Formats: sequence, C-alpha cells, structure tokens
Amino acid sequence: MCESTVYLIDKNGKESLFFELVDKIVPDQNTVYLEDILGQKKSIQARIKELALVDHRIVLEEIGE
Amino acid sequence: MCESTVYLIDKNGKESLFFELVDKIVPDQNTVYLEDILGQKKSIQARIKELALVDHRIVLEEIGE
Repeated sequence: MCESTVYLIDKNGKESLFFELVDKIVPDQNTVYLEDILGQKKSIQARIKELALVDHRIVLEEIGE
Repeated sequence: MCESTVYLIDKNGKESLFFELVDKIVPDQNTVYLEDILGQKKSIQARIKELALVDHRIVLEEIGE
C-alpha cells in the first residue's frame, strides 16, 4: 500500500507528525483536506510544501494569519 | 515502490498522462516541480488538484493566463 505519512511545519517552523496512513489529499485555496485509508478525515489551513512518495513522506506548511 | 502517475488537466479541461513513476513533487507559487524515480525532472505552470496515493494517481490542473 502506498499511503503516506503527513508532517506539518507549524507557524514557528517546527515539524511534527500530523496524520498517518493518508490516501487522499485535496488542496483548495488555503485549506488542505486529507483522508486516511480508513476514511478518517482531517483538514487544516496549510499548503503542500513537498511530496516524497517513495519515502511515504508529505510535508504541509501551516498558513499563519 | 510508491511512485505515482501524474495526470494533467489542461486549460480546455482535457485530462491526459503527464509524467510516470513520479517520486518527488514540490509546488511553488504557480509552478509544480516534479522528479521521477530515475531523476528526470519536469516542471509546469499548474497547481495540485488531488492526490490518491493508494491508486498511485496525482492530478495537476494547468494554470491559464
């Protein structure tokens, strides 16, 4: 299975684990909508910073006010 | 391996295959930078529309002027 782990860089530049086993990601305006392989959903005010699919690693960057 | 196939929806709304065996993707402003597992690179004026990782499917949407 090719689900990925999503990490979030917060407004202070600190990276932490945000969501595991992620299957679907849809960015829309300033929000990123995510769904894991079990159908659990999360969304966050962020943008996609980078994807490294072979490493199963996705990094989001939180959008500050 | 968890590389994905990247499809592009062009300015006329038509979807076609853009790049296969993609490992890394970095969106920056209106450009998406991609690299496949062999290190070949492409970039395009587009935004990420959706990722479906378990299906190895990524869709970009071309940005028109």
